[in-house]
Formats: sequence, C-alpha cells, structure tokens
Amino acid sequence: MDIVIPLFDRFEPLDAIGPYEILAYVPGVEVRFVTDEPGPVQDVFGALPVHVPTRYDEVEQCDVLLVPGGGSHHAMMDDPAFLDWVRRIHAGTRFTTSVCTGGLVLAAAGLLKGLTATTHWNAARALASYGAVYTPERVVRQDRVITAAGVSAGIDMALELTALLTDEATARAVQLYTEYDPQPPFDTGSVAKAPADIVELARSLD
Amino acid sequence: MDIVIPLFDRFEPLDAIGPYEILAYVPGVEVRFVTDEPGPVQDVFGALPVHVPTRYDEVEQCDVLLVPGGGSHHAMMDDPAFLDWVRRIHAGTRFTTSVCTGGLVLAAAGLLKGLTATTHWNAARALASYGAVYTPERVVRQDRVITAAGVSAGIDMALELTALLTDEATARAVQLYTEYDPQPPFDTGSVAKAPADIVELARSLD
Repeated sequence: MDIVIPLFDRFEPLDAIGPYEILAYVPGVEVRFVTDEPGPVQDVFGALPVHVPTRYDEVEQCDVLLVPGGGSHHAMMDDPAFLDWVRRIHAGTRFTTSVCTGGLVLAAAGLLKGLTATTHWNAARALASYGAVYTPERVVRQDRVITAAGVSAGIDMALELTALLTDEATARAVQLYTEYDPQPPFDTGSVAKAPADIVELARSLD
Repeated sequence: MDIVIPLFDRFEPLDAIGPYEILAYVPGVEVRFVTDEPGPVQDVFGALPVHVPTRYDEVEQCDVLLVPGGGSHHAMMDDPAFLDWVRRIHAGTRFTTSVCTGGLVLAAAGLLKGLTATTHWNAARALASYGAVYTPERVVRQDRVITAAGVSAGIDMALELTALLTDEATARAVQLYTEYDPQPPFDTGSVAKAPADIVELARSLD
C-alpha cells in the first residue's frame, strides 16, 4: 500500500510525522513524501529541513493521500496545479485524509463540499467558508474522506486508518509499539476544556 | 533557552519530532538538532532524510539536552566521544532528558546509575543492566534528569518540561495549540493494557 504525504515549505512537523510514525510500521505500507520543488523543505519552526526528492506530479496514483497542515497550507491552496493534482489523486484513492489545516486544502480542492469535517480549532470558520460543516471532533470519517483536528490529532487518525487498511489487531500492535498510552500532564487540549485566558495565550503562539 | 536534540542515523521520527513540536512553540526557546556527521540524517523507516548542519561537539553548553531513541541508540552508545560529550553537556544543563531508547544512551553515559527511570517497554531489561531502576511509568523525573517511555511519550514529557522551563499556563496553551486532547481509538498503548497476542504482534514490528 502506497501512502503519499505532500510536504510544502513551512509544514507543521507533527501534522506529518505523527501519522508517518504510525503508518510506516504497518506491514505492507510504504509512505512517500512529495513536494512542489524537490530539495530541502523547511518546517514552520525552521530547524528541520527535510529532503524531499519527488515532485507531487510524479505521483499519479496512491492508496492514501494524507495532507498535513501548518504554514504550508497557504502555498498549497494558492497553487491551482496542486489542487488539480489533489482532485485527480483523490479520484483513485482508497482514503483521502488531512490533519490540521490540511483540511483547508481538501476544502479548497472542493472535496469537502457538504461534508462534515474537522480541522485545527482556530481554522473552523475558514473550513466552513468552503462549504464544509465543521464539527469539533478529533477524527471525522465520511466514507473515504477522513479529516483530523489540529496537529497531534493525526496520530489518532492514523491508528483508525491503520485498522481500516489492515485490521484492528495490527492497529493495536502499532499503538503498543509506539507506546501510545497518552497521559498529558494537563487537560486543556481542546477549546471546550480550556479557560478563556489559555485560549487567548494559545492564539498568541501562532 | 537552548534545547539540543542529537539525531543520529536511523532515529525514530516521533521520538524527536513530538517534543520538538511542543518545545518550539515555547516563547524564548530555540531548538537545535546536532549529529555525528553533519549532512542528511536518515530516520529508521528511510523516507525522511533530515539535514542536520551541526556536529554535536560544536555545542559546548545548553539548557536542555533531549536524547531521542530508535535504531540510532546503538550508534550513540558505541561512540565513546559522544558519550563523553553527553556527560560534559549534562554537567551544565538545567534538564537532561530522553525519549524511548534514548534512555539507554543516558544510561550508557552513566547518568542513570541508581536512578529510577523509564524507556521503551521492550528495552526495560537493557536499561536495568546499566544500574537504573526501570519503572513502567510514562514520564519519570529525578531532579534534573527526566526520562520518557517509548516513542509518543516524548509529547507528554515535553509538556511537563515546558511547565518546568516556563509556567503551567504556557504549557497549557501549547497543549491547546497543538490540540493535544488524545483520543486513541484503541486502548492497548501499554504492555499492562495489551493482551499477550498484541504484545507478540508488536514485537514482530521491530
């Protein structure tokens, strides 16, 4: 099985690497990164240049498309040729998926029109502007389109996807191998759980 | 504040990138990667070559040392000059930390002797062989030495570390920004929770 993750300049590292970590352990899965200009691709913080050798349009088909977000979603959404490619690839995937503001990219490609979907909490209004119905859930599956909420939600989505691509035992084994037994020291991981001053502080980190 | 993460060939992506994602959002923090041979450094799955321009011994001091694990821990443990550097750096850090089998590296450097510590569940015996007292907890702090369990545990550790380096409000805001409100679809993230057949299947993924 062939999973393709487009990485553009200013990508959010965990959006892409969380799912990569989970999916790369699945027997029979190959994960490939693609980009718009092959070579080093910088992340949003600027300390992690990743070498991506493949231009997106060298890929004509894949089983799963996984679009991460971060600062890179603007470049993806402003590139009509890339959005065309997303639509073309989507026609042949088993699953088309996004993490964080990667959901805005699927929306801009017209793939979420009329669908219930999720994205980073701070991008909810933008998602709705493309005709998607935003829901503050962590992972939303509508047939073969799966969207995940912000950043770390890609890990949960990738485990669900693993079960869909293989079976539940494999997904559970990958969860154990990556020791994904989360115990966050605080409980303010969603807007519903965070007081207003923490929401303001979080917005200021952007 | 200066946080240094050594990346050697065959590193486990999420071990390093989980904490990087959290810590890079902390105001006033700079995260840097270092390696043994500057240039592209390959991850354990082979699809994510990261360009690391700095050799570890170009760094003489930092506030936090964070040693990730994965296939790279062998190369780190077999390099006496690197273990010397770890000891030298540790003498001046505010916190010396590890994720996954990065704990074995701290142990091989002699930093965990007599301390309670954690690592990937599959490396517990190896950790104990260096005189550490393995405990199957997710994050273990002993004064200024903090060890985290396997792979994804580095995210929890990094949030705790954020609170120690700044304050709890900042850590909560970073948790919200990265939308770390984990909802794994299964509950087999630790050996204590996984049935024997899943433990065997997980071992076979190694």
